[in-house]
Amino acid sequence: MRKRNVLVAQSGGPTAAINATLAGVVEQAVISGKVGKVYGAKYGIKGVLADDLIDISEILQETHAMLRLIHTPSSALGSCRHKLKSAEDDPDTYKTIFDTFARYDIGYFVYIGGNDSMDTVHKLSEYAIKQGIDVAIMGAPKTIDNDLYGMDHSPGFGSAARYIATTFAEIWCDAKVYDTPAVTIVETMGRHVGWLCASSALARKVGAAPQLIYLPEVPFDDNKFLEDVEEQLSLSPSLVIAISEGIRRADGKFVNEDAGNAKVDAFGHKHMGGACRVLENLINNHMECKVRCIDFSLMQRCAAHLASPVDLAEAKALGAMSLARALEGVSGEVSVLTRVSDNPYRVEYSTVHATTIANREKAIPREWINARGNFVTEDLIRYVEPLLGVPFTRESCSDHLCLY
Amino acid sequence: MRKRNVLVAQSGGPTAAINATLAGVVEQAVISGKVGKVYGAKYGIKGVLADDLIDISEILQETHAMLRLIHTPSSALGSCRHKLKSAEDDPDTYKTIFDTFARYDIGYFVYIGGNDSMDTVHKLSEYAIKQGIDVAIMGAPKTIDNDLYGMDHSPGFGSAARYIATTFAEIWCDAKVYDTPAVTIVETMGRHVGWLCASSALARKVGAAPQLIYLPEVPFDDNKFLEDVEEQLSLSPSLVIAISEGIRRADGKFVNEDAGNAKVDAFGHKHMGGACRVLENLINNHMECKVRCIDFSLMQRCAAHLASPVDLAEAKALGAMSLARALEGVSGEVSVLTRVSDNPYRVEYSTVHATTIANREKAIPREWINARGNFVTEDLIRYVEPLLGVPFTRESCSDHLCLY
Repeated sequence: MRKRNVLVAQSGGPTAAINATLAGVVEQAVISGKVGKVYGAKYGIKGVLADDLIDISEILQETHAMLRLIHTPSSALGSCRHKLKSAEDDPDTYKTIFDTFARYDIGYFVYIGGNDSMDTVHKLSEYAIKQGIDVAIMGAPKTIDNDLYGMDHSPGFGSAARYIATTFAEIWCDAKVYDTPAVTIVETMGRHVGWLCASSALARKVGAAPQLIYLPEVPFDDNKFLEDVEEQLSLSPSLVIAISEGIRRADGKFVNEDAGNAKVDAFGHKHMGGACRVLENLINNHMECKVRCIDFSLMQRCAAHLASPVDLAEAKALGAMSLARALEGVSGEVSVLTRVSDNPYRVEYSTVHATTIANREKAIPREWINARGNFVTEDLIRYVEPLLGVPFTRESCSDHLCLY
Repeated sequence: MRKRNVLVAQSGGPTAAINATLAGVVEQAVISGKVGKVYGAKYGIKGVLADDLIDISEILQETHAMLRLIHTPSSALGSCRHKLKSAEDDPDTYKTIFDTFARYDIGYFVYIGGNDSMDTVHKLSEYAIKQGIDVAIMGAPKTIDNDLYGMDHSPGFGSAARYIATTFAEIWCDAKVYDTPAVTIVETMGRHVGWLCASSALARKVGAAPQLIYLPEVPFDDNKFLEDVEEQLSLSPSLVIAISEGIRRADGKFVNEDAGNAKVDAFGHKHMGGACRVLENLINNHMECKVRCIDFSLMQRCAAHLASPVDLAEAKALGAMSLARALEGVSGEVSVLTRVSDNPYRVEYSTVHATTIANREKAIPREWINARGNFVTEDLIRYVEPLLGVPFTRESCSDHLCLY
């Protein structure tokens, strides 16, 4: 039987685990014995449109290259943010993509990405079925935001959560070093959901930061915020606050929306940044206190040196599974994780239809946030903890000593 | 013979190695067999003035507490920025300090800090000698800035340099992920000297970032900067620039001085921040290109999880040596490192007079910066490399794989 080729591509924002998923696809291709070459498209689906494919099975035959790949942050094939129109509205684009597939004899395409990319998986799979084209199109999930439906958590999130928890624990040691009142506001990514920001709560297992957490899931109230800050400063001169970039007031507007710096990307998403500065000004206008802003910026998604070993292992397995199902003829599905238990931590692997995931965002359940809306509950901590992949407890390496 | 007590305190900005120096003092106290208790002053010299001392020898008798201390970032005793006036101008303060010493039967005081703290060491030592008070006052150096005279490098710098080099290597993978032109400007600490910022050059051993480095040692020129950016963007769509917070124009003014956000601390130093934003605006006003600012903020000085093992070992040895010399009756001196060779990396330990260090700042030699003033030379890289304490080369864990 003719061995057809595999194509793989990466899309959306980088994570520290997305290359582990790529490695899983390549390894599965090799061990299956059922495929020819593995091609990678440069810059996601844009590489397919531009006929910009490279033979990565050749490069990754080196064992050492494969190991390096797993520990390389961001997308080793490059990425894009490119939304496909419907096949009805833009038939030429679909024809171009499937012509490329035919030219390279692609029988299996695995697209690694978030909810926007799963929309692409769905559209391409539907098109292939309608046109009677024999290409299996599968998705493999990734996003640091952890906002994907249909799965317990998304690959990439655990590593980002580990970075955030580790860094909050370290920042606590630094932020409290003087005896004068000081507020440190740390902004994490998270446009519409607060999973990343909420993960900062893990740092409380080894220190006192953050004392307050503000998430997009709860409307932000300026007065309640100022009350919270005053109350915390009456308890300790050092206050560390975690905020999500996407915190919004009750009217639904992002707190930094009036600051006039929101940009819109190709998917129509607004790009935030600067919520931290709005809160800094709010405090400065109402009390005498040193305030400092910290933005975790790209570091929270590309800190490969702090990648969660659990995250990398799961990400790799999901990539492998997506190709395994494609080889069985499954199409339009995405490989996902279901949690069986927290302790011992156990997951099961399965697939869901791409439309379960596409164009939707999974928020933190309201009951995992306290009534006041300024911290998270034990349920959330129990959920995140195993995803860090390392102990985060007293007597672990994250545990710091304070003598004062 | 009566065993007198030791006092130790920490001052100035946090580092990831300052607690290793504290551990060195305590361990030396224990193994010398010549001292009673080891007291720690809370919040530096302010704790001495406020009679706020704790018996840390008791706490640190637990072996595990000692190990945790070494790996705890920032100052485990708290810190301060408190400048002593001269004994002539402010005799009461000196009387208070030496009364506290007498009350706790302190025979040896080790002050861990930067150039401002070494001014305190000098003043207290001079006062003791003039007044005929038998207390040996010794300094132990620390600063991430690496700006201390009289030594090859300062403890704390190597760990910060490792954080910076590691993070630039990771940011490169992320910053280049799309095929559209993008400039990422990363601001490091370094008010008057560029050692921290220059350390980003180590990331070039495993990637292409940073392509440009701007330091306080070379006057910043807006037009030359824009030329550099245009030239680099013609070579690659992804450009990562490292800048020091303290870059200044030819007139000596900080580039963000007119932005009106410079604050002045207790030592009269201006606190910067925001040079990055000035350069972002400069680019935005002259070309069409996405520009992003990243500030390493506190993370660069408190990332204990990336501490340099060389840095920690040296910091601990210097703390031990400062107390050892104090026990021999030496006073007014600071323990320092002299480099014997780069490869194999070897240092020798000695002491210098506190005035060698006090109130001075050691800049990068001009010949370690290229003629254009936008990058560093191999000499600088050779100097910094052993201080990271880990291999930073192709085939090391910092080496990432790019497939496009």
